[in-house]
Amino acid sequence: MAIRYGVVGTGALGGFYGGKLVRAGQEVHFLFRSDFEFVKKNGLQVDSVKGDFHLPEINAYHTTRQMPVCDVILVCLKTTGNHLLPELIKPLLHSESIVVLLQNGLGLEEDLFAQLPGIQIAGGLAFICSNKVGPGHINHLDYGKLILGSYNVARNTNLEQIVHDFQQADIHAELAPDLSFARWQKLVWNIPFNGMTVVLNTTTDRLMADENTRELSRELMLEVIHGANQCGVPLKESLAQQMIDMTIKMKPYAPSMKLDFDFRRPMEIEYIYSKPIQTAREAGFEMHKVAMLEKQLRFIQGNW
Amino acid sequence: MAIRYGVVGTGALGGFYGGKLVRAGQEVHFLFRSDFEFVKKNGLQVDSVKGDFHLPEINAYHTTRQMPVCDVILVCLKTTGNHLLPELIKPLLHSESIVVLLQNGLGLEEDLFAQLPGIQIAGGLAFICSNKVGPGHINHLDYGKLILGSYNVARNTNLEQIVHDFQQADIHAELAPDLSFARWQKLVWNIPFNGMTVVLNTTTDRLMADENTRELSRELMLEVIHGANQCGVPLKESLAQQMIDMTIKMKPYAPSMKLDFDFRRPMEIEYIYSKPIQTAREAGFEMHKVAMLEKQLRFIQGNW
Repeated sequence: MAIRYGVVGTGALGGFYGGKLVRAGQEVHFLFRSDFEFVKKNGLQVDSVKGDFHLPEINAYHTTRQMPVCDVILVCLKTTGNHLLPELIKPLLHSESIVVLLQNGLGLEEDLFAQLPGIQIAGGLAFICSNKVGPGHINHLDYGKLILGSYNVARNTNLEQIVHDFQQADIHAELAPDLSFARWQKLVWNIPFNGMTVVLNTTTDRLMADENTRELSRELMLEVIHGANQCGVPLKESLAQQMIDMTIKMKPYAPSMKLDFDFRRPMEIEYIYSKPIQTAREAGFEMHKVAMLEKQLRFIQGNW
Repeated sequence: MAIRYGVVGTGALGGFYGGKLVRAGQEVHFLFRSDFEFVKKNGLQVDSVKGDFHLPEINAYHTTRQMPVCDVILVCLKTTGNHLLPELIKPLLHSESIVVLLQNGLGLEEDLFAQLPGIQIAGGLAFICSNKVGPGHINHLDYGKLILGSYNVARNTNLEQIVHDFQQADIHAELAPDLSFARWQKLVWNIPFNGMTVVLNTTTDRLMADENTRELSRELMLEVIHGANQCGVPLKESLAQQMIDMTIKMKPYAPSMKLDFDFRRPMEIEYIYSKPIQTAREAGFEMHKVAMLEKQLRFIQGNW
């Protein structure tokens, strides 16, 4: 049975993954904000290392109230607007809908479930280097792996079908046996590099080239790993060195929070920092250095 | 018996305190670097909240090799050049000379004593808001208290006479019973505010106005207090709140490290951060957040 997809937030992520699904023949409905008029007229352009493509006519909407109900709702917005999410997605929900939060951080599913009890939720983690470079214009630079995991999805077969659809669309998609594990694992990278590139106004390559920040990155990673362990998530300490080695090999990179900082947009401090700190604290572990980075980021956010 | 003073480094501190001693009738010999020619011709100008004064002719030198030996050598240089200190002050020493390190940080006396075994050393802490605003031109804005403490001075009466000379020169000077206590106490303020104004590119008033950095300042202070405690220095936890309250009342202030940062001069990371961290670590206490601040500062120092 074909799945009807809704993409809420058609930017770097939603435009790429949703566009790939359309190209593979899936039915996808896209929410746009400022780009709506442009896309209605010109369609969606995806430049990708895996091959450029153009979708001249897509199901584009300016508000979710005009969209049909969907089986799967891919939420691809910044978490800084998540308090508005229930109102935004309500018009898309039917009794079996699955909401997939393709967002970074921790505690997202819990918050949404508390606001919309009874709905089915999954989480998604995108390992991708992709930007929106103009109206309805996405530039996919590298990677693209997608990991999905159930928060409270009733039947696993439903998530398996979504993963299958992505795979058919030439996306490296996987089902995570444990969403919490996957979210914490991604935080091991996101916590040091999002915050430090902002606080020190730099890029990953410079952080890796300097022994002080290379060591500090490792210490922050270990703190996150120990925080996860205390929450029952069995991340290994060796993951820190693996991620350091991987980051050393990466091209110079500005994580999404650094781009938000550069453009003076709200930063995703709440779900990438505050929630993990709070979750580990409630489990009895204080992530001291992560908490210091959080406070520095909140100062920066409040003083530009 | 009159003391012959030598001032090594005639800047914001040396110019003010040395100038006050001259004005009170003491014999003082001053080392200048770039300002030497100017001062030879124009003298030393001190603008002070306690009253401006001009010293048209002072004993100015361009190198310590031309200076006479002195009874008391006031070292008023940045600690970033302390590795050159033994060579610099050797020509000023006689068998009874006392070297007073009027510098911030920890471990200064130990390092100098290791390089020049047998000399008598004291430490000095200046609680002053003072800047060099031009060649041979000091601007004293506020405060001025001076605390002296013995590292290995043979007879306490000698330090008492120095304190007396400063008092006669209208300086609020005191003898600290425990130099280590006095140095750690000053670090409780210096460690949070020097580093955070640099890393967050701001001033003390903004750090105090934001609840995140106000709390982080308190946490850093408590870490320093606990580090000191572990080293046998009985600082009280209540000192943190006292210093927060004092800083809230202060005018907007950029500590010396922030000025060094703004002018891209070497920062005093070694003695204000690394030595205290190392000293506490050897005593079995890890100052996690202070160590994080140190690494951020070293990155900044190495990447501008």
